[in-house]
Amino acid sequence: MTIEYQYEQLEESGTLENFRRARDGKDGGFQGMWFQDSDAYKWLEAASYELAKADDTNLRERVDEVIDLVAAAQEDPGYLNTYFQLVEPEMKWTNLNIMHELYCGGHLIEAAVAHYEATSEESLLDVAVDFADHVDDIFGDQIDGVPGHEEIELALVRLYRTTGEKRYLDLAQYFVDLRGHDDRLKWELEHPSEIGGRSWNDGALIPAEGGGSPLLDEDGEYVGTYAQAHTSAREQEKVEGHSVRAVYLFAGVTDLVAETGDEELFDAVERLWENMTTKRMYVTGGIGPEREHEGFTEDYDLRNEDAYAETCAAIGSIFWNQRLLELTSEAKYADLIERTMYNGFLAGISLDGTRFFYENPLESSGDHHRKGWFTCACCPPNAARMFASLGQYIYSNIDGVLTVNQYVGSTVTTTVDGTDVELTQSNSLPWSGEVTLTVDTDGPVPIRLRIPEWAADVSISVDGGNVNQNDDYVELDGEWSGETIDVHFNQDAELVRAHPEVKSDAGRVAVKRGPLVYCAEAVDNDRPIHQYALSSEAAIDEEHRDELLDGVTVLQADAEVPSLDGWDGSLYRPDEETDIESIQLSMVPYYAWDSREPGEMQVWIRVT
Amino acid sequence: MTIEYQYEQLEESGTLENFRRARDGKDGGFQGMWFQDSDAYKWLEAASYELAKADDTNLRERVDEVIDLVAAAQEDPGYLNTYFQLVEPEMKWTNLNIMHELYCGGHLIEAAVAHYEATSEESLLDVAVDFADHVDDIFGDQIDGVPGHEEIELALVRLYRTTGEKRYLDLAQYFVDLRGHDDRLKWELEHPSEIGGRSWNDGALIPAEGGGSPLLDEDGEYVGTYAQAHTSAREQEKVEGHSVRAVYLFAGVTDLVAETGDEELFDAVERLWENMTTKRMYVTGGIGPEREHEGFTEDYDLRNEDAYAETCAAIGSIFWNQRLLELTSEAKYADLIERTMYNGFLAGISLDGTRFFYENPLESSGDHHRKGWFTCACCPPNAARMFASLGQYIYSNIDGVLTVNQYVGSTVTTTVDGTDVELTQSNSLPWSGEVTLTVDTDGPVPIRLRIPEWAADVSISVDGGNVNQNDDYVELDGEWSGETIDVHFNQDAELVRAHPEVKSDAGRVAVKRGPLVYCAEAVDNDRPIHQYALSSEAAIDEEHRDELLDGVTVLQADAEVPSLDGWDGSLYRPDEETDIESIQLSMVPYYAWDSREPGEMQVWIRVT
Repeated sequence: MTIEYQYEQLEESGTLENFRRARDGKDGGFQGMWFQDSDAYKWLEAASYELAKADDTNLRERVDEVIDLVAAAQEDPGYLNTYFQLVEPEMKWTNLNIMHELYCGGHLIEAAVAHYEATSEESLLDVAVDFADHVDDIFGDQIDGVPGHEEIELALVRLYRTTGEKRYLDLAQYFVDLRGHDDRLKWELEHPSEIGGRSWNDGALIPAEGGGSPLLDEDGEYVGTYAQAHTSAREQEKVEGHSVRAVYLFAGVTDLVAETGDEELFDAVERLWENMTTKRMYVTGGIGPEREHEGFTEDYDLRNEDAYAETCAAIGSIFWNQRLLELTSEAKYADLIERTMYNGFLAGISLDGTRFFYENPLESSGDHHRKGWFTCACCPPNAARMFASLGQYIYSNIDGVLTVNQYVGSTVTTTVDGTDVELTQSNSLPWSGEVTLTVDTDGPVPIRLRIPEWAADVSISVDGGNVNQNDDYVELDGEWSGETIDVHFNQDAELVRAHPEVKSDAGRVAVKRGPLVYCAEAVDNDRPIHQYALSSEAAIDEEHRDELLDGVTVLQADAEVPSLDGWDGSLYRPDEETDIESIQLSMVPYYAWDSREPGEMQVWIRVT
Repeated sequence: MTIEYQYEQLEESGTLENFRRARDGKDGGFQGMWFQDSDAYKWLEAASYELAKADDTNLRERVDEVIDLVAAAQEDPGYLNTYFQLVEPEMKWTNLNIMHELYCGGHLIEAAVAHYEATSEESLLDVAVDFADHVDDIFGDQIDGVPGHEEIELALVRLYRTTGEKRYLDLAQYFVDLRGHDDRLKWELEHPSEIGGRSWNDGALIPAEGGGSPLLDEDGEYVGTYAQAHTSAREQEKVEGHSVRAVYLFAGVTDLVAETGDEELFDAVERLWENMTTKRMYVTGGIGPEREHEGFTEDYDLRNEDAYAETCAAIGSIFWNQRLLELTSEAKYADLIERTMYNGFLAGISLDGTRFFYENPLESSGDHHRKGWFTCACCPPNAARMFASLGQYIYSNIDGVLTVNQYVGSTVTTTVDGTDVELTQSNSLPWSGEVTLTVDTDGPVPIRLRIPEWAADVSISVDGGNVNQNDDYVELDGEWSGETIDVHFNQDAELVRAHPEVKSDAGRVAVKRGPLVYCAEAVDNDRPIHQYALSSEAAIDEEHRDELLDGVTVLQADAEVPSLDGWDGSLYRPDEETDIESIQLSMVPYYAWDSREPGEMQVWIRVT
């Protein structure tokens, strides 16, 4: 449904019409944001993942139609960006800070790789290769500079992996190494008349005043933090600036490390991941608290009500973590992917997949709602490609071990060290922790199961193979002929505290159960949510309700609220004259909030 | 010191130069905000109060000099506003919404009355009378309309009381009755070209977009709430709009009621006072939480960190409450004056009287500081006239009873029902509740002492007279010949809760002692303030420290903070693995905050 819906949006928003006009050599008439081409590419990528899962003639024809359009719009020798082709053909590559030609090109490449992998057809790959060759010809030669919005880096590594052409890897390395050491972004800011007259603030989500742009410091001097261009990725200590850009960059850097084994760069991404996950990340996996520059601020600044926590930043974090997981096989990255998927990302999309949050606050007075589309419509097509590519996150096959990273019902047929494997997974997550795996192999194949961070107790029953267990993984060595592995992960609800430096969460707890973060909504509770305080030793009851929110497990916890007695006509009263009452607080999974009657919502609940 | 300092500011800001240019018939060259004349009038009023207390030749000469200037700048027949005289002489009285000619004129009248009462000289009174006569000639005849910013109403009643001219009272009644029923303010908004081209948003503290102006509703339709012009004062149910304007209006309305006995209007001010004090007032007495329109919002919206709570609104509230006290003799108004004086107002001024808060938040991350002057410099001269007129708030003489409303060291010599009285008051407030009064009379004079709302226990020893006591007052009937009345008000520190609907204060307490609200500042405490939670049964120690903040009583309370153990490398941990530690929280009076090293400050402290 989402793929079809979003195709309609591409037509309605003028995105496809822009390609048609460029194809026909027309002048002007561009519709939408100047980086709108990327919506078409994200849609092509998502549609390709769908085609990889199951061929669908209608969808394939529609995809081919869009690819034909994109290919026909491409200029010789490889340039492709309908905004510049239609509006400012003489200004190509002049404004790397905000004009996003390389960002759009990166999405073109990602779509092309996905399409090639799904169909073995080179129609879109040829377009991407021509584009990449054109960029390679120009950058480092006619222009030395990096894009304001990262994306091309990880795309080029993908293109290298698909084509084997090392110069794409080198080009990715060029962009990564130059960032923080180039003079281009600063020069552009200082010469607005030479970059097409479009200034930094023009149309970008950056306020015109008030120090909102971390490209500049308090004195108005260029610092580049917004675009992670304050220093080389190699030297960065903290995740900074626009959060989507940051995690896209780090995903690309991790790809480079995987190909080059660059230890210094690896140390940098580990250090940045540590900073993000231990000081700058919401309990939902969301990142980037600040609206003004859509990004990171200070350690422990995790404001709840006006949290930005952009849906696309959660998606980017998943991209980055998946690359770290593939590189290291460390379960912590899969844990964070799961946490972000079920909470920070999933909350961004309505239950029916047609409305989206751009921002994902952890507290609301009831006036924040999902919308069908946005002026800057990055989230919906990004969410579509995330959903369509979910399968890529479930299993990995590294060093001869078939690893189950995510618990998602699925069947995988693959080859591990030359041995054929068919593995079928069914489970009852996130509502209860039962996982059943059935495995068939041609010979001995070790199978590894991630033990989720939230699983306090794990029990496993296997009718074949030996069980080895550590904190992060259970490993089963054996030969399999249809045996069943039954796993139970305990997922009692638990109260979680935030670090004492987090001012917004002081004296509060979040409630988690299994991979899910819960929240309290006005619609389920009699009193305003802010009046509730949970007891630290609260008994928490669980009830699965099939009819509610497409089926959720609801939590009921012992809580206190202030008695309303004696308040009549008083605004302030001595504490000793006031009283409390016992009550139950009802909670639902955070991802499902704002699906019913609007009202107060809180993830972090006061605790007595 | 403040009077002298502010005179220098009048010169520096160009305020006096504007009058000189108008006097000399010059064109243009106006400096400052268009309502800057009012700064000169507020200064004259404050200086007159000083002259009433003690003659000072230098100050008297300076006052006469400024009065000469003001008189010379006045046009025939009575118009006076240097902005219009210098800049737009053809546009007088065209823009009542924001051009503040009547507001400035109101301050001229207040200054004139104060000067006449202090000196018996009519030099400034003549100017005020000419202005008022001019207004009376025009309004209701050539123009039907009310000013966007109230002030003229209360001023006209003052002028009536001083001169006995009933038409000033009638003119005040005209402005009060027309507000909410006039079409002028709306008409102006719809015809910007006919009101000098200056639009509502031009220079006013109203955002250009985003629904900040409560003159308009969500659909952009005129509602007038910002200027209390949504309906007649008679019909208003809640305090709304710009808070300074609101309380100035209600002060004027209360004055009218005192003169006319209008019961419907009296019911309205009582109803509005109830709404303000039981739903829309900070524990400090501050009012108006919202920055965008400097005013009131919704019941129980009492946000702390970004509280606006303008210093001038606290001053205006004191004006209003003093009029209610004089009208009714009810102690609750004197209580609120005391609370506002010591907290919401006093915090607005630095200990040395040279720097000011425009806004008075109840919580800060340490980046809010007093400044020497403001573009819109209403607070400093308003604070000066408040300080200079303090004496007017101490005693009242109503119905043959000499009432001590405020506990301020002073001597009063007066006549009560024909009997001469000399009363001397000394006390140790706010640090301890000892009050000593010595009274000499020519015959029997009942003396009434307010029992402050915060005094749980009261003990009185009198060596003359009989004691009658109710909840609000102690009354002593007697003939006095130098007898001493010793009073002790118990002022143990106490914890106060806000109404359960106040989201910002949920799970928090404020600490009060006597008339003072306390706060915790980073400079006195080891941990960030947000980490502290007081125990409901906290033992609170008191220590008076003469060397600190010009001498304050410091409070130390038992508190808890989270243990920092085990947090290394963690951002979120299970509640059951975390621990708390006992600690002391040190607090100082709120009025003295931001006088030392900047850092976190909180009035409302979490409670366990």
